[in-house]
Amino acid sequence: MSSSALSLLRTHVQNPLDGSLSDFHVTPDIWSAAAARHPALAARLDVSIGRTRADFDTAIGEAEILVTWVGVAKETMDDIAHRAPRLRMVFCTSAGIERLMPLDWLPSRIALLNNSGTHSTKAGEWGIMAILMLANHMPVFATHQRERRYEKIFASSVAGRTLVAVGTGAMAIDTLRLAKSLGMRVIGVRNTALPHAGCDAVVTTADLDRVLPEADFLLLTCPLTPQTRNLIDRRRIGLLKPQAGIVNMARGAVIDQEALCDALDAGRIAGAVLDVVTPEPLPADSRVWTTRNLSLVPHVSADDPLTYTPRSLDIFFANFARWIAGEPMPNQIDPARGY
Amino acid sequence: MSSSALSLLRTHVQNPLDGSLSDFHVTPDIWSAAAARHPALAARLDVSIGRTRADFDTAIGEAEILVTWVGVAKETMDDIAHRAPRLRMVFCTSAGIERLMPLDWLPSRIALLNNSGTHSTKAGEWGIMAILMLANHMPVFATHQRERRYEKIFASSVAGRTLVAVGTGAMAIDTLRLAKSLGMRVIGVRNTALPHAGCDAVVTTADLDRVLPEADFLLLTCPLTPQTRNLIDRRRIGLLKPQAGIVNMARGAVIDQEALCDALDAGRIAGAVLDVVTPEPLPADSRVWTTRNLSLVPHVSADDPLTYTPRSLDIFFANFARWIAGEPMPNQIDPARGY
Repeated sequence: MSSSALSLLRTHVQNPLDGSLSDFHVTPDIWSAAAARHPALAARLDVSIGRTRADFDTAIGEAEILVTWVGVAKETMDDIAHRAPRLRMVFCTSAGIERLMPLDWLPSRIALLNNSGTHSTKAGEWGIMAILMLANHMPVFATHQRERRYEKIFASSVAGRTLVAVGTGAMAIDTLRLAKSLGMRVIGVRNTALPHAGCDAVVTTADLDRVLPEADFLLLTCPLTPQTRNLIDRRRIGLLKPQAGIVNMARGAVIDQEALCDALDAGRIAGAVLDVVTPEPLPADSRVWTTRNLSLVPHVSADDPLTYTPRSLDIFFANFARWIAGEPMPNQIDPARGY
Repeated sequence: MSSSALSLLRTHVQNPLDGSLSDFHVTPDIWSAAAARHPALAARLDVSIGRTRADFDTAIGEAEILVTWVGVAKETMDDIAHRAPRLRMVFCTSAGIERLMPLDWLPSRIALLNNSGTHSTKAGEWGIMAILMLANHMPVFATHQRERRYEKIFASSVAGRTLVAVGTGAMAIDTLRLAKSLGMRVIGVRNTALPHAGCDAVVTTADLDRVLPEADFLLLTCPLTPQTRNLIDRRRIGLLKPQAGIVNMARGAVIDQEALCDALDAGRIAGAVLDVVTPEPLPADSRVWTTRNLSLVPHVSADDPLTYTPRSLDIFFANFARWIAGEPMPNQIDPARGY
């Protein structure tokens, strides 16, 4: 701590306690580079970087700002009201913070933020890949490859096809933009039916049943909340066309996984590309491994090791600038909304 | 045949003799729609449409123009010099016409054309899909799925990565354009090192060895000729980086398939997405089915049933317009070059 620490905001950056996710750690070099991009803001902070539980325990009593992983927060927040009397901001370098819900443990003096926006470029490339894979029957061909079955199935361009996107936030926007650039029709589904630059039409979740039958592709990027848990249940899967495919970049629990596997194995829908499943890691005896026309990805779609941590820190600084200006922070979690 | 037939060009459209490829037949409706798009040109033609060998045998003696599949041409061209004394143009609704090589059977009075350009949109979507699949380790994850192995492997955006494209023609241009739009660096490899709008740099095939070590992705769309057969041989596969992936949309014989499978099974290169293999259909005992990190597609990448035949006919009419104007036809095959 520098001698001018009392005039600075005591900021602790805590990497995962178990050393995991090393591709995504905030190293001193990565912090310094981010600080150099935001020098006036960084000059307001007195920063420590921790790697162990002891580092965390040493720092938390004085910390006013904590930058950390959702997993670290999950492990450390239980008694945070007492252990961190000066804490006013927790910035989680994760977009999905459902593991911290409900937020009844969160003192009202502490703002909780996620890193929404970090993932857009990588998520966009992955999302359009997954849509094109479904359009081109790639999960079917992977199943046929397992069966040594050589059978042509032709496909048309995605131009004019309909993408229904449940979730239209930072995790979806680049996929929607790329889908539009390929001539697709995009229907966004979100909590408010306000117009959205990436969508031809927007409906609320209340109208989901009405748009599902129109979907050639169903893209899920919504946060997992009590409202979205099991949102795509057996009945709604039944509303999809036989030609429809599902891309899940949200959380496994947004879909009724058994119903999805039943529909795929029966050929009632055309395919699925799943970055997320229930549970993770997927047990060896799960039926998901061998479900027909299902391509499984181990929850890596949106996380780009080259850009993840620098962009997360840029988003932290952008929010910190709003905070010291007394303005609302765009990444602050609304405890009532859950994201 | 109409009463004014003598003043019109006798044109026969022959669908596959065995009824195959029914998604791609020239039906009377599809022909009429194409004729309506090119009324002045269509008015110069007296057209018959055949489905059987008998239809072909009846029409070929008088035909001046034949529009057909490469497979039909392969079956019928042996004695064409004698059977079709008036024939001056054969338009093949295929891009790859290597099955007709060498062209020693082709009387010099007959111009042979392919439908290059038909496939661009669909091929572009498929090509960028395949590149994004390699970037995101999808062939690896498909292998892991077979093994019930849940193991995260992260990936970065393709921005800044290098695509080496062997073949920069109609089959590649939309993939190159999409790759550029995602920030990739594109090196084209073709017979002449002339600048190419879709490429950051162009080299000739003589410089292939120099650019292969730079490739994150190697995209093959070149025609199969004596020069490109086995072009990507064991030695050249050895020039690729361990992180490199291969997309083959050309012909299986452009790659040494055994060497490719060896490299993939040994992990010496990262992955492959193959629309074409040797032979097709792939026999059940081929090692290709189970080669690691290899995604197999049954030769359907570029063929869009909704647009294939209409676009092929548009390309026929565009060339026919040049022909009656006495100008070179862009789709005419050069017997010496082989494409």
